[in-house]
Amino acid sequence: MGVGRKLKHWIGDERVDLARSRLHEFAEQSTERHLRLAVTGLSQSGKTIFITSLVHHLLHAHRSGSLPFFEVAASGRVVSSRDLSTASEHPFPLRQALAGLSQDPPQWPESTTGLSEVRLAIRYRRPAGLRRVLGETGTLYLDIIDYPGEWLLDLPLLEMSFEQWCEQQTQLFAGEPRAKVAQGWLAQLGEIDWTAPADPAVLRRLADGFASVLQQLRTGPDGLSLLQPGRAVLPGEYAGSELIELFPLMIDHWPSGEVPAGSYLDLLRSRYDQYCEQIIKPFYSRYFSRFDRQIVLVDCLKTLNRGEACFEDMKAALSAILESFNYGRSGFLRRLFAPRIDKVLFASTKADHVTANQHHNLDRFLELIVEEAQRNIRFDGIETRSLALSSIRSTQAAQAQMDGQVLSCLRGISKENGEEVALFPGEVPTELPGADDWNEERFRFIDFAPRRLPLNDLEAKHHIRLDQVLEYMTGDLFR
Amino acid sequence: MGVGRKLKHWIGDERVDLARSRLHEFAEQSTERHLRLAVTGLSQSGKTIFITSLVHHLLHAHRSGSLPFFEVAASGRVVSSRDLSTASEHPFPLRQALAGLSQDPPQWPESTTGLSEVRLAIRYRRPAGLRRVLGETGTLYLDIIDYPGEWLLDLPLLEMSFEQWCEQQTQLFAGEPRAKVAQGWLAQLGEIDWTAPADPAVLRRLADGFASVLQQLRTGPDGLSLLQPGRAVLPGEYAGSELIELFPLMIDHWPSGEVPAGSYLDLLRSRYDQYCEQIIKPFYSRYFSRFDRQIVLVDCLKTLNRGEACFEDMKAALSAILESFNYGRSGFLRRLFAPRIDKVLFASTKADHVTANQHHNLDRFLELIVEEAQRNIRFDGIETRSLALSSIRSTQAAQAQMDGQVLSCLRGISKENGEEVALFPGEVPTELPGADDWNEERFRFIDFAPRRLPLNDLEAKHHIRLDQVLEYMTGDLFR
Repeated sequence: MGVGRKLKHWIGDERVDLARSRLHEFAEQSTERHLRLAVTGLSQSGKTIFITSLVHHLLHAHRSGSLPFFEVAASGRVVSSRDLSTASEHPFPLRQALAGLSQDPPQWPESTTGLSEVRLAIRYRRPAGLRRVLGETGTLYLDIIDYPGEWLLDLPLLEMSFEQWCEQQTQLFAGEPRAKVAQGWLAQLGEIDWTAPADPAVLRRLADGFASVLQQLRTGPDGLSLLQPGRAVLPGEYAGSELIELFPLMIDHWPSGEVPAGSYLDLLRSRYDQYCEQIIKPFYSRYFSRFDRQIVLVDCLKTLNRGEACFEDMKAALSAILESFNYGRSGFLRRLFAPRIDKVLFASTKADHVTANQHHNLDRFLELIVEEAQRNIRFDGIETRSLALSSIRSTQAAQAQMDGQVLSCLRGISKENGEEVALFPGEVPTELPGADDWNEERFRFIDFAPRRLPLNDLEAKHHIRLDQVLEYMTGDLFR
Repeated sequence: MGVGRKLKHWIGDERVDLARSRLHEFAEQSTERHLRLAVTGLSQSGKTIFITSLVHHLLHAHRSGSLPFFEVAASGRVVSSRDLSTASEHPFPLRQALAGLSQDPPQWPESTTGLSEVRLAIRYRRPAGLRRVLGETGTLYLDIIDYPGEWLLDLPLLEMSFEQWCEQQTQLFAGEPRAKVAQGWLAQLGEIDWTAPADPAVLRRLADGFASVLQQLRTGPDGLSLLQPGRAVLPGEYAGSELIELFPLMIDHWPSGEVPAGSYLDLLRSRYDQYCEQIIKPFYSRYFSRFDRQIVLVDCLKTLNRGEACFEDMKAALSAILESFNYGRSGFLRRLFAPRIDKVLFASTKADHVTANQHHNLDRFLELIVEEAQRNIRFDGIETRSLALSSIRSTQAAQAQMDGQVLSCLRGISKENGEEVALFPGEVPTELPGADDWNEERFRFIDFAPRRLPLNDLEAKHHIRLDQVLEYMTGDLFR
């Protein structure tokens, strides 16, 4: 006789059933899980589209078969999903993005400029073996937080004085393309007596000038990423605030003697300290410290297309970003908060722009770029992986003949002229490109026009590996 | 004052130096190392060329820079290497193979049909940190043993009775292409009264017939590998021996009643038991049990070219071969000997027949084929890896234009017409091929004529990844 039947024998059926259902309720509540999954990347890495498509597939996981490698969905264990984002302080613009992407032709969403989040509640049936212990169903509260990778570039400032930062920036702005783009603005620095009493209006004008230099570097042909301060590029909630009216004073303009209180330089220096204390540190302690897992998006193909300067700068920027996950080395990160991120996924977007037999090379190429950072992260006990994906798949496989052999190609709509094309899209390198490759303009991946994201009847062919992302980042929590 | 100086102070310089040099000699002798590295593969997987080229590069490691990823060689620590093979009972025909391969045009060596070995003594300088403890130099005695993979196919016989083996073979020979090739021979089996007193001459004729059926299956268009008994295919030292006059009696010819002593069937059955006891077991206990590490060569490209039957048969044969490394499951292997193999490398030869950006896919494809076997091997605590290589590199990288993109191609001498060609060599699949791929004759990798292996001035470009093989298989022993 089982415990249940014994109890029924002693105290009657109904009371046992009631007790049992309460017990289950309790077990369930006590095992409700919460996961804060952060998504970042340098601007134009495709964060907004990634989150929109991921959440869309997730909200349909209980009825569409679009996520074959996401076990809880593929085995039919998802009961239902609810979007609770309205309860968030910074809701992610999911509805607008989805409306745009599902039009024909689709409208690309505007890039987000600050932090926002999607909050989901996913109700799932537990695997057979756990039902008796934990109850029939469970709920995962999944918060997906979007924030600019640029903000993580500010981390090193916390370990530098204003003067040290100015020295570093002086070196950086001595090189191209920074020197040329900043030429006019740099000249203006020379017109100021930095020991004279400060006029905030003048500082504001120079800060605006510097911000526009950074924007030019970011959106110009080289598409640079390693730009500080991060909030001068993407201010987020600090747009218009005096706190971000900050720029480096190149070291040749520094006065040799004392810096008088209230002078330009004095004000700038205290702005720097405020920036560190009131912007950088709070971001880490309020937000970053609460992330459980992290996805870092990288657009490898765009970077290859733009050439060596963009590529090298992106590599440097990624390394700087990844310092934030490197608890072991950054002692002061540990002082700021108790780290809890246990998994970091690096994802190369736009895998649909190369043929399927190159996805593996794309994984590998991304690994080459983040190799050192990954090693450090692993050393700190964080699990990490690299993966090529496509948030919305815009191409289909095609074949061509070449020297009597089959050559894998792609079919899609050319972004340039809107016509259907079938072509060989180019090769992903398997080693970091050498000088020869850059000179030859070896990499010219073409841009395919996006396909619309259907509102219903989602299928696995509408994305590449979003299911693997979900399985890797959340699979262990659907128990 | 160090110990040495103290000793000199007490007992005089010369005696201390003498004692010290004896101590070093002792330390060195006691740390001489011996490694038995076995190389196998199904016939025509390129074992002879692999061993010839590997040993040739190794014998030149102290003066050529041809092995950049083999640390002891790349760091200049190899002092000298000597070939001690003449001391072996079964010397590998290195000199002849090398003479042929270094001609222009090169002569391909004849395939070896039995077990043979190269014995090398490699003297090396120890890494700086270990010199004081172990002495300036050390010696690795490296035996490289070549044996046919076909012999490992006999392992399952040890766990079967003759009748069970006959049942299995009956099933196998009911399918194509075996049924058709064996048709005439199978008819001959029906002409014998298997309970009548045996005439050894008749059995010999039938055994010869069966051996020639196996040869046809092996060298025919399907190029089958899963052929038993292994010694009927490659007799080695048993060529002409009565011990290998063995074949299966298809189960429909088995008499229903008693098997009289001295009858055909009785003799055949005792041959089977002798084959197990006197050939299979001694090979495992005398040779296999003494191997320290193992390389298994596979020609993935040839198998893809030959089509589905060849491919599936090769997969089955590899699985059977790998049972020999699967100590955990094969309890009787443990009863035969104490296993000591701690590393198994799977290598796909002819990597030079595909472009460099596909080497990774070739690694991966090989992994797909040996996936399950590798999992079992790892479970038994053996380290294992898959790697695409080329023993003698016959092609160079070339580029073509396709849809405005650069397409990686190869330049080499066509084996068919001896002319220099530059062409796209075809794609290695990243998944196991489906029915569609086989029907379309998707895989038609062309054969390039071999380049000669230079006798001197070896360079890294003369092979692909032989250095990685050496580092993986022996690197840890050069300490």
